[in-house]
Amino acid sequence: MARRLKMAAIGGGVIGGGWIARFLLTGNDVAVFDPYPEAKRIIGDVVAGADRAYRLLFDQPLPARGALTFHDRIEDAVAGADYIQESVPETLEIKHKVLGAIADSAPAQALIGSSTSGFTPSALHGGLSKPGRVFVAHPFNPVYLLPLAELVAGPANDLGVLDEAEALLASVGMKGLKIRAEIDAHIADRLLEAVWREGLWLVNDGIATTGEIDDAIRFGFGLRWAQMGLFETYRIAGGEAGMTHFIKQFGPALKWPWTKLMDVPELTEELAAKIGDQSDAQSGMHDLRTLERIRDDNLVGFLRVLQQNNWGAGKCVADMARTLRDATAEQGGGEAVRDGYPLRLHAATVPESWLDYNGHMTEHRYLQVMGDATDAFLAHIGMDEPYRAAGRSVYTVETHIRHLDEVDGGAWLNVETLLLGADTKRLRLLHRILDGDRLVATGEHMLMHVDTEAGRSSPFGAPLTGRIAAIAALHAPQPLPAEAGSVIRALPREPES
Amino acid sequence: MARRLKMAAIGGGVIGGGWIARFLLTGNDVAVFDPYPEAKRIIGDVVAGADRAYRLLFDQPLPARGALTFHDRIEDAVAGADYIQESVPETLEIKHKVLGAIADSAPAQALIGSSTSGFTPSALHGGLSKPGRVFVAHPFNPVYLLPLAELVAGPANDLGVLDEAEALLASVGMKGLKIRAEIDAHIADRLLEAVWREGLWLVNDGIATTGEIDDAIRFGFGLRWAQMGLFETYRIAGGEAGMTHFIKQFGPALKWPWTKLMDVPELTEELAAKIGDQSDAQSGMHDLRTLERIRDDNLVGFLRVLQQNNWGAGKCVADMARTLRDATAEQGGGEAVRDGYPLRLHAATVPESWLDYNGHMTEHRYLQVMGDATDAFLAHIGMDEPYRAAGRSVYTVETHIRHLDEVDGGAWLNVETLLLGADTKRLRLLHRILDGDRLVATGEHMLMHVDTEAGRSSPFGAPLTGRIAAIAALHAPQPLPAEAGSVIRALPREPES
Repeated sequence: MARRLKMAAIGGGVIGGGWIARFLLTGNDVAVFDPYPEAKRIIGDVVAGADRAYRLLFDQPLPARGALTFHDRIEDAVAGADYIQESVPETLEIKHKVLGAIADSAPAQALIGSSTSGFTPSALHGGLSKPGRVFVAHPFNPVYLLPLAELVAGPANDLGVLDEAEALLASVGMKGLKIRAEIDAHIADRLLEAVWREGLWLVNDGIATTGEIDDAIRFGFGLRWAQMGLFETYRIAGGEAGMTHFIKQFGPALKWPWTKLMDVPELTEELAAKIGDQSDAQSGMHDLRTLERIRDDNLVGFLRVLQQNNWGAGKCVADMARTLRDATAEQGGGEAVRDGYPLRLHAATVPESWLDYNGHMTEHRYLQVMGDATDAFLAHIGMDEPYRAAGRSVYTVETHIRHLDEVDGGAWLNVETLLLGADTKRLRLLHRILDGDRLVATGEHMLMHVDTEAGRSSPFGAPLTGRIAAIAALHAPQPLPAEAGSVIRALPREPES
Repeated sequence: MARRLKMAAIGGGVIGGGWIARFLLTGNDVAVFDPYPEAKRIIGDVVAGADRAYRLLFDQPLPARGALTFHDRIEDAVAGADYIQESVPETLEIKHKVLGAIADSAPAQALIGSSTSGFTPSALHGGLSKPGRVFVAHPFNPVYLLPLAELVAGPANDLGVLDEAEALLASVGMKGLKIRAEIDAHIADRLLEAVWREGLWLVNDGIATTGEIDDAIRFGFGLRWAQMGLFETYRIAGGEAGMTHFIKQFGPALKWPWTKLMDVPELTEELAAKIGDQSDAQSGMHDLRTLERIRDDNLVGFLRVLQQNNWGAGKCVADMARTLRDATAEQGGGEAVRDGYPLRLHAATVPESWLDYNGHMTEHRYLQVMGDATDAFLAHIGMDEPYRAAGRSVYTVETHIRHLDEVDGGAWLNVETLLLGADTKRLRLLHRILDGDRLVATGEHMLMHVDTEAGRSSPFGAPLTGRIAAIAALHAPQPLPAEAGSVIRALPREPES
């Protein structure tokens, strides 16, 4: 991140709170205007949920939070802002009033996004004297996890305003999708609306309950849509004949009278109560906080999968992780020790998924942290992708771990690394994992430099040799730590009875 | 699984092949009728894809595959079948002909499911003399990964046929969703059809390309739908006021003229070509095999996340994993050694996600396999959930690993476990990880029995004491293995220059 941004959030409900959380936790400042008396509490709840989710999503420390301030007047909140997001109730009168106040007092270069789910930019612009920087930036709940923001401009907008917004939102991990033309409800809510209408008919006609409809989605095509959407999924289904052919085949089925979408079901008291009752039967065993937590845990898992597979929304997470690393590096102030004794090259947070049935970090995750610290050490001495691509790498041949203390979920671990010894082909390292001041584990490791193509050990090449020597010169004068050369003690072959 | 099932697949395209793969790989026999000359190749491809996906999805060996046979006549394929699945082209004339032949020659108790996506059971029954066991079992591609099968019966069906089908399909990891009433296209395809129509309009009118529509789905609400569907998601959005209130609020928006669904876009040559071109631009850089692999990798990841979170489709995977374990145990024929020297209590397969940048199993996964073997040992000596719930557990305090050889993705690992020693509070174990006959790592572990509430070591309780003594009596007479008590050797503090 080039610099810390200043964001203004006008309206801080669930949607506004999600925007606020995303900006704050990526290290940017947020100034809030929201006259609702409960706004501070709601925003606090959303930010706490987002903080928990980010600690599960990223295997690295988060940057220091930006400053969160509350203001009584819109003009105070937007003063000096780079980006302003409006998330007030969905009526055109209120939107005009609030966006007018924002546009009239915002800095000339500030971007002004509206969270509106239904109104076109031109509808919003209708009431404004300075519409040029006001555009639609429609997000999806939970805003701190779902990357999508539909970006829509109208004829009254400044040229390039969406490109600016796309770039700025990318820095907080969002996917700005620029829509080619303005229509009511943009794209995604059109699709949602279609499903919603059909779903209401199915409930209304007693074909399915809300729970059954949800099951029909989440055990089937919902799993496809988290990664590929509609057309790419059908492209696979269409097979070798190609998409154009598939569409032509599909034609006749579209003429069949399968849908009742031409009509809107009357939302009677009775239908509303029926849906409410069915929803209680389906989900009432979980309170809302629990449902939010379940949803976020699942989303975090999906996003990690997609990040690992370098696909779709996972690319946003990867970009965001890089931004966070940069921000942490800028804000770190001496956390990392890249030239000293001991070295501090690696830190990690402990996600819930790393805990075992005892509720503590499970044993192989200690070694994962040590392995990542080894990788950080190897990167530090110059083993990069080109080095490995040339057919040379370093393998661990032996490891001795002492588990000294428990680690809880959410802990931030720092690793101290000592170079105990080296020869032309081998390194002997000691990692100490610290949870705050508490030493929770030590790992002693013998590493072997290998020619991966020949499949045998080989001497370190440049630049590794020089950097190893430089570190050894710093570490060798220090006494060998007591834990070096630990051995597991013998026990009686049979317990005494 | 109580017993190995015999399934007949009538029609073996992508959908039929998916059914075949699911049954075969869960250890059941499948007899196929499909006159299409390419059927064997297509089925082989689908089964190979499913096999790859299952090895990524399950951290355990798969049972031996059932027998796959091909037959020239429907009556030969369905002979002796427990379950018959019809997946022939979607025209009523063909369905009537094929389902008639199946129902006339099938065993009286066989279940006969149709993969039809559009026809009601009554429409299918119209041409049959024995309709009682013929029902709709509508799956979703890829059938071997997506758990959903919509189960629909009509007035001509035997009572309870859907309950039987639901139970049988659960044994192969599927979620049979019994639909309350028969309507064209059941439930899920109604919802898909609605989105499909709206999507076609958006492309037709130039509002969005196929790629942009897919992005609007997969970066946003698609991530929600993989886990919660429509109504549960809105329940959270509705907040404390409740679902009935949310529906009433939503009412006015439904009246807005947002949709063009009342009409069907004309699927002209021009529109078909437009969609084909856009799809090429969106996905043409990946061939179909690659897209399938990407899709399956993402689905596997999502299903693992949901299994870990014990939610939705993940529960089907958990059930399926238990079934596979049972099947492996029944078919294993002496793999596990539960009473001998060495013990063999744990096996694991190596998913792609366990590989490092060198393309081999990353170092902490060796310890994960050892830790799981330790858990298997502790379970074997009687440390179960009630034992732990009483506040006693076993922690690893020290570990010594020797990495002896590389492990590739897809490898099946077996662990030999030796009890090296024990006292009243401690166990000293040695695990040897074998890839076939190849010893790839050894792990020596010191374990401490603890009172988790008091936070200190404590003597083993019953039944552990007795079982440890019994194993020690068997293992103590054997010589201590050479690798016991290994220590990492010293290297020069500084490399020679």
